[in-house]
Amino acid sequence: MAQRGSQLVLGVDPDPAALWPAPAREGGHEDGDLAAAPGEGARAVLDHCRALIAAAAEACVAVKLQLASFEALGAVGRAVLDAVAAHARRAGLLVFADGKRGDIDVSARAYASALFGGLDSPLGRFEGLGADGATVNPLMGRDAIEPFITAARRQGAGVFLLVRTSNPGAADVEDLALAAGGAVWERLAALVAELGEEGIGAAGLSDVGAVMGATAPAHLRRARELMPGAVFLLPGIGAQGGAVEDLAPAFLPGAAGGLITASRSIAGAHQLHGGSPAQAARAEAERLRASAWSLFERATA
Amino acid sequence: MAQRGSQLVLGVDPDPAALWPAPAREGGHEDGDLAAAPGEGARAVLDHCRALIAAAAEACVAVKLQLASFEALGAVGRAVLDAVAAHARRAGLLVFADGKRGDIDVSARAYASALFGGLDSPLGRFEGLGADGATVNPLMGRDAIEPFITAARRQGAGVFLLVRTSNPGAADVEDLALAAGGAVWERLAALVAELGEEGIGAAGLSDVGAVMGATAPAHLRRARELMPGAVFLLPGIGAQGGAVEDLAPAFLPGAAGGLITASRSIAGAHQLHGGSPAQAARAEAERLRASAWSLFERATA
Repeated sequence: MAQRGSQLVLGVDPDPAALWPAPAREGGHEDGDLAAAPGEGARAVLDHCRALIAAAAEACVAVKLQLASFEALGAVGRAVLDAVAAHARRAGLLVFADGKRGDIDVSARAYASALFGGLDSPLGRFEGLGADGATVNPLMGRDAIEPFITAARRQGAGVFLLVRTSNPGAADVEDLALAAGGAVWERLAALVAELGEEGIGAAGLSDVGAVMGATAPAHLRRARELMPGAVFLLPGIGAQGGAVEDLAPAFLPGAAGGLITASRSIAGAHQLHGGSPAQAARAEAERLRASAWSLFERATA
Repeated sequence: MAQRGSQLVLGVDPDPAALWPAPAREGGHEDGDLAAAPGEGARAVLDHCRALIAAAAEACVAVKLQLASFEALGAVGRAVLDAVAAHARRAGLLVFADGKRGDIDVSARAYASALFGGLDSPLGRFEGLGADGATVNPLMGRDAIEPFITAARRQGAGVFLLVRTSNPGAADVEDLALAAGGAVWERLAALVAELGEEGIGAAGLSDVGAVMGATAPAHLRRARELMPGAVFLLPGIGAQGGAVEDLAPAFLPGAAGGLITASRSIAGAHQLHGGSPAQAARAEAERLRASAWSLFERATA
């Protein structure tokens, strides 16, 4: 992050009804990424994702792949996801899988195999996505979370637990006040700190991070108190209404304390600012990068 | 359910390291389910699932497909899932997708497309799984749940929100006491009742149900008070320690008030009781069916 001067994560959540026009997707084709022919629709989604990554990569440190968008493609979805992840890696980006999984131990282990290192079995090897990070839903508690952390650590990867999300409905459950004091999300934050303690590295940051919606900046200072070593994944910038300027508390432990994710505001920048989709995306990514980096420099000056 | 005298749901969560021995999987092959060659490992998983369904179907009303198990197969996972779902349908069973998804509105819609009716786009059609029901994680609140309900209703399908799950970690978050009284899970139960009100049909049951772990039977009576019209999906029988005899409150609104899911106790019955895997699975499914049905008859006598 220091090398790139960036805390920006490119959210990739292609909607087949809102892809870049065909000429803007050109140059996306590459051989070798897809074993099977994915059909024209899935191919167009893949080309869109590649063109978007090519346009924005320089300003970013990672992609956040929204698994829902790929699952909606049906049987070829995972192959397209794998191909997009490979493309992002070649562009020098970390790959985060945003699937918000969570399930009982045996199923959590299966999800973790799919997201991280794959599965070696008597039937042979099943490849995993090889993600560097994955979002996890903590509602079901410790034993539904720990298999993800274990599998991530084995790969030098990490997890981000949902703590306080960016959507309006976050108030329905995450913000409920607890009898013991604090809100549900603050208890989730305590869980992040607890589970992440063993995973704190040389930089003082842990491999257990937190999804903290950028639309609720009032919570960020408190969140930082509760989770001093957590990397915050901060969705909600742009299309969801959050502003980079509100994020200062995220950066207190250093540049990597806050990762800012933006999806539609980058992929759809041409609709707002004109220009070609790629040019507009590159410019908007660079604007977000510079604005976050200078905020970080001021916050830690 | 009345016709089959059954409330039993066969949990299908194949572990490549614990499939039925090859001869027990014979007869699983069928043409037409898989467009692409899935590789030997995935083929063995598919044959196992087919043989398991063939053995247990008569005693069951539905299958619950654990999506994690299929995602762990990598790029072919979704094709295998589709094939298993098709096989279950041919056996006269409903198909529940157990993925515990939950995300912001646009992503929830994409997940719902994948699980239910598919997606029509300018690029053509992407097929959905066509599930009759799907589990949904409610942590992110109403706007993360409603797209699943909308998509399910369009298909005459339903959803099951996680309310109080069957794992030990459920105590970490779901059981937290709220300042306003009650526990987090009771607030989730209220959400189920609220979101399900419009979906109550002629039988007095709603298309918004609840996952209520059979390992916490003490909660079932209270859950039924809070969610009088909800179908309870009751995992945790057998391998996870729950007993059919504790489930009476689930059945108060009628036979379909409680759906009992069992996975490892059926697929692994031969390890406990001897015999061939198929014979042991059939016998154990029939035992669970009969035991639940007679409990239902006593509870509503």
